[in-house]
Amino acid sequence: MIKSGTMSDFLSGKEMKVHLECFPCFLRQCVIAINLSGQNGAGANEIVRAALVDIQNADLDKSPAHATTVMHRTLRERLGTDPFFEIKHRYNAIAMELYGELKEKIASSPDPLGTAARLAIAGNVIDFGIYSTIDIEGTVERALNEPLAVDDSDAFHKAVEQSTDILYLLDNAGEVVFDRLLIEELVKRGKKVTAVVKAAPIINDCTVEDAREVGLTELCDVVDNGSDAVGTILETTSPEFRELYNKADLVISKGQGNFETLLGEKRPAFFLFQSKCSVVSRVLGLKEGSMLLVGNAR
Amino acid sequence: MIKSGTMSDFLSGKEMKVHLECFPCFLRQCVIAINLSGQNGAGANEIVRAALVDIQNADLDKSPAHATTVMHRTLRERLGTDPFFEIKHRYNAIAMELYGELKEKIASSPDPLGTAARLAIAGNVIDFGIYSTIDIEGTVERALNEPLAVDDSDAFHKAVEQSTDILYLLDNAGEVVFDRLLIEELVKRGKKVTAVVKAAPIINDCTVEDAREVGLTELCDVVDNGSDAVGTILETTSPEFRELYNKADLVISKGQGNFETLLGEKRPAFFLFQSKCSVVSRVLGLKEGSMLLVGNAR
Repeated sequence: MIKSGTMSDFLSGKEMKVHLECFPCFLRQCVIAINLSGQNGAGANEIVRAALVDIQNADLDKSPAHATTVMHRTLRERLGTDPFFEIKHRYNAIAMELYGELKEKIASSPDPLGTAARLAIAGNVIDFGIYSTIDIEGTVERALNEPLAVDDSDAFHKAVEQSTDILYLLDNAGEVVFDRLLIEELVKRGKKVTAVVKAAPIINDCTVEDAREVGLTELCDVVDNGSDAVGTILETTSPEFRELYNKADLVISKGQGNFETLLGEKRPAFFLFQSKCSVVSRVLGLKEGSMLLVGNAR
Repeated sequence: MIKSGTMSDFLSGKEMKVHLECFPCFLRQCVIAINLSGQNGAGANEIVRAALVDIQNADLDKSPAHATTVMHRTLRERLGTDPFFEIKHRYNAIAMELYGELKEKIASSPDPLGTAARLAIAGNVIDFGIYSTIDIEGTVERALNEPLAVDDSDAFHKAVEQSTDILYLLDNAGEVVFDRLLIEELVKRGKKVTAVVKAAPIINDCTVEDAREVGLTELCDVVDNGSDAVGTILETTSPEFRELYNKADLVISKGQGNFETLLGEKRPAFFLFQSKCSVVSRVLGLKEGSMLLVGNAR
């Protein structure tokens, strides 16, 4: 068990519940999904109405990810299709075009593991559940040249060094190319990495097809978590996943959804993500768009 | 009856229904109102839930203003207070501080009526149903120095000249100071102006208290429309208002809400407003934030 005990203070007492500002955002996510599906007119309106029922029934004491999990299930069911199917493949391809250049940045860096971690945070900008336009290259520059808002890099390096089994919770398609680069650094250091994908499509989250598409399945074990939830809602995951989660030396968790849903959990973990909304940013006391590498390892 | 028949083509065939993008915006308006009221926690969440029911039951073939009218009624009832009460008085005072300077701009203009009309459009930026921050002085400069996106000024001048009884549909508190300046120009030209306010608080719309606060009641008749609806939903107005509406020589209509709800009506009217949202802007084929002086007078 790692006991670096660094930034736990930063996370202490913070919890994610549904805030007032989440409600319009839930519907914005709903509109993004419907627009991507091509559905419109009266059919689209009926689907919004169904989503409104989910939002009304949401448990506001749980994380926003709990609420959107139910809403996105309804959306997929009513749309009869995965609205993010095409955009996921497109962004896997776009990110793969950057792979060589990013690999080079890591190789020429004095701190390849740290640089790979920062690039993994940059890749978290690829999120079509929340954004409708993104600037990947600008975000890469920002991640490499500006300080992270919370930077537990030293503890992260130490935790990686002391770990053998690392469970890597992936977030989005496209972004997974950036994760592959960080996982390559971990594998190079002799770590046994298990990368975790969603068991079914949810927003633009990475599934096993995406992991395969970007070559990750040839690099490390890729398993699904048995769940179609936003983030990692443990009670919706499979016993097999929970066993991996409970026995890993270290968890590397990508994205705001995993952060929201695992905040408060006691496993040694580092969260690599961008704080994408006003609610999470306010809870963290940070500006929107902040980049974090924050650990609860102790 | 005025028959200037100018820009009717621009409005022809356009109609406002609820679009997908309206749904998140409805909830954004709801959150603005709740935040202004100071209500929070579980009480605030219960109020959002009540608003969600209204949104679910909204008639999507009617204008978005129809839907938000019902929602804002629920909000006022559940909050037990008018959340916009304080901000309305504040912006009446802020706009009154600009009164002298604006009056001077009109007096020194080669076209006082046209300048007053443009300032009235600028004042439409004062809208706390939609915006949380505004730039009044920048908007005044833009209205005076840049072309309007749709500019029926010539027809407007001619219609005013040919009219005796003018019905002036006010929009927001604060903005009403800008309307006072335009009404002063109309009165100076011997027009009999009747200014119309809401009969009850709705968002930050002008009520008779606001008209009195900015000196409008000393300048012209001020009547309420018998309604608490967003915009002017004729079936919710009083018979007295409808009589005025039907017999006026000319209607001057302020704001997007009045435009949404009166679009398609056949009375000779000029709409002075800013196109404040993506949905209305798309229907009009204009950029968001466009300023319009558009007539259906013919």
